[in-house]
Amino acid sequence: MTEEHYIGVDLGGTKILAGVFDSDHNCLFTDKNKTKAELGYEGVTARIVETIRGAAHLTGIDVANSKGVGIGAPGTISADGSTVLFAPNLDWRDVPLKADLEAELGCPVWLGNDCSVAAMGIHRSEFESKPRDMVSIFLGTGIGAGIITNGAFLSGATQAAGEVGHMVLDPDGPVCGCGTKGCYEALASRTAIFNKVKAAVEAGEKTLLFDPESGKPFNKVRSGKLRRAVEAGDELATRVLDETCLYTGIAIANLCNLLNPEIVALGGGMIEQLHETMLPKITEAAVDRMMPGARQVSIVATKLGDHAGITGAAILACDHA
Amino acid sequence: MTEEHYIGVDLGGTKILAGVFDSDHNCLFTDKNKTKAELGYEGVTARIVETIRGAAHLTGIDVANSKGVGIGAPGTISADGSTVLFAPNLDWRDVPLKADLEAELGCPVWLGNDCSVAAMGIHRSEFESKPRDMVSIFLGTGIGAGIITNGAFLSGATQAAGEVGHMVLDPDGPVCGCGTKGCYEALASRTAIFNKVKAAVEAGEKTLLFDPESGKPFNKVRSGKLRRAVEAGDELATRVLDETCLYTGIAIANLCNLLNPEIVALGGGMIEQLHETMLPKITEAAVDRMMPGARQVSIVATKLGDHAGITGAAILACDHA
Repeated sequence: MTEEHYIGVDLGGTKILAGVFDSDHNCLFTDKNKTKAELGYEGVTARIVETIRGAAHLTGIDVANSKGVGIGAPGTISADGSTVLFAPNLDWRDVPLKADLEAELGCPVWLGNDCSVAAMGIHRSEFESKPRDMVSIFLGTGIGAGIITNGAFLSGATQAAGEVGHMVLDPDGPVCGCGTKGCYEALASRTAIFNKVKAAVEAGEKTLLFDPESGKPFNKVRSGKLRRAVEAGDELATRVLDETCLYTGIAIANLCNLLNPEIVALGGGMIEQLHETMLPKITEAAVDRMMPGARQVSIVATKLGDHAGITGAAILACDHA
Repeated sequence: MTEEHYIGVDLGGTKILAGVFDSDHNCLFTDKNKTKAELGYEGVTARIVETIRGAAHLTGIDVANSKGVGIGAPGTISADGSTVLFAPNLDWRDVPLKADLEAELGCPVWLGNDCSVAAMGIHRSEFESKPRDMVSIFLGTGIGAGIITNGAFLSGATQAAGEVGHMVLDPDGPVCGCGTKGCYEALASRTAIFNKVKAAVEAGEKTLLFDPESGKPFNKVRSGKLRRAVEAGDELATRVLDETCLYTGIAIANLCNLLNPEIVALGGGMIEQLHETMLPKITEAAVDRMMPGARQVSIVATKLGDHAGITGAAILACDHA
């Protein structure tokens, strides 16, 4: 009997990662490309197809013979799973991604929100569906989450649950992209860190995060660069990372006091690069603010690393195929 | 056939309310007594028994012939439902309330946390179990909640879920009874209001909430007194109530962004007295901070009023009997 294959895709604002999985959720081969969001919907869709075909080629299979493709997309997905309603990082609105990819690939395609899909990957693959109450939080350019309660994934009344990045943690804090003041994302994401570093550099502070001699424009702080600066003892990098750990700890305490999960799993680019530095600080800030009954929680970095998204996406395909 | 009766008890720090219900969750008769927490565990237990017997007497039934008694108690209940582990307002630790009441009453008794039980009363009786995702928040001396997700009551991994009062909303805010800075309860409960009024009066501000001529010590702000002061245009009373509405709106926005419920039902002493003033302000502050996908939520005051607790407690008995 031929082995069955499922393909998982993690579509991000910066990169596209695709992986071919067997029916036991083992990843066989992956391929990766830059997203190039500036190419627009058609251009990015072509790059998704290219990445999927790349991973299939490495595995030695034909995509059309796979059981299906799951996609975690960075935005809101329609209730019927056909359309990306809004993906701010890609500048997409109401795009029929499922139908367009199915026409191109010749196999079924299922869409999910990137954080929901990655949280499902962690719950199902890393924790074997055991925790009945669990939260996964992803720290990167933005901050998102996936919540498991009473043994099931929490979608909410209108598929809008899990927006942990828009939990207000300081009503007088900086304005968030959503328009509200003091959201967790506006205080602690990589975007928030970039804004803090930019303001400090403009005020004359020296930091390894910005080399004025390079002549290059200063337009983001990558997680790897932040890690190297922190490891080199850079004061500004350490300070902004400590703030991210503090607010992440507060956000986790709030979630634990509300939902009393067994496990809080952290993922995303910042955690992948910096979990050794961040996890002890995050845990201390969180446990300090938890009610005694909630303190048995385990706060961990996902072992799946940046495979959380593709693993969950492959499981999405496997569940539906 | 004789009608079946269930007795629900709402045990508070100030008063004990007991109600006799039929099997359709209709309340037939109630009785009420002051708790007198200063009498200690045995004294308060005797007063619970007296209140239950009072309601049974009005109904013309014998407690021992009822199908059972449910109790909503203001604290943490052991996982087996036998013991109140900690009830700060009553100064109780590890008291075997179930066994002691069963010995006295001659019928089965079940214990639950007061907010969990009241939330269950609202969900089951007022909303006929229809909402699959719902939050009930109770504003009084403290602030508590009960959460329904995926159609089931959320207890969490160690029966510690629902502590909405200890969600941090301002990391530099006033210190809460739990030791953390800036919990919702420390910013917005009736205790927080009392602390703000006391500080303002001590700083020389005039208010209808405190009559220096009365010679009476100034030791709390009851919800009814707060309502009358607000209705009379008292500036301090209006200001502190506005702050409670703002923080309640922020707390609700956070919950809606996380859990995306259909309904947020508000209850407790402050809402009972002041919902006409508070609800529009709370709703505005909440909707302003919600992600678009979460905004379809209905924010309402429970129609059960102070019967939410006894209704839920009777349902607790009915479920187990």
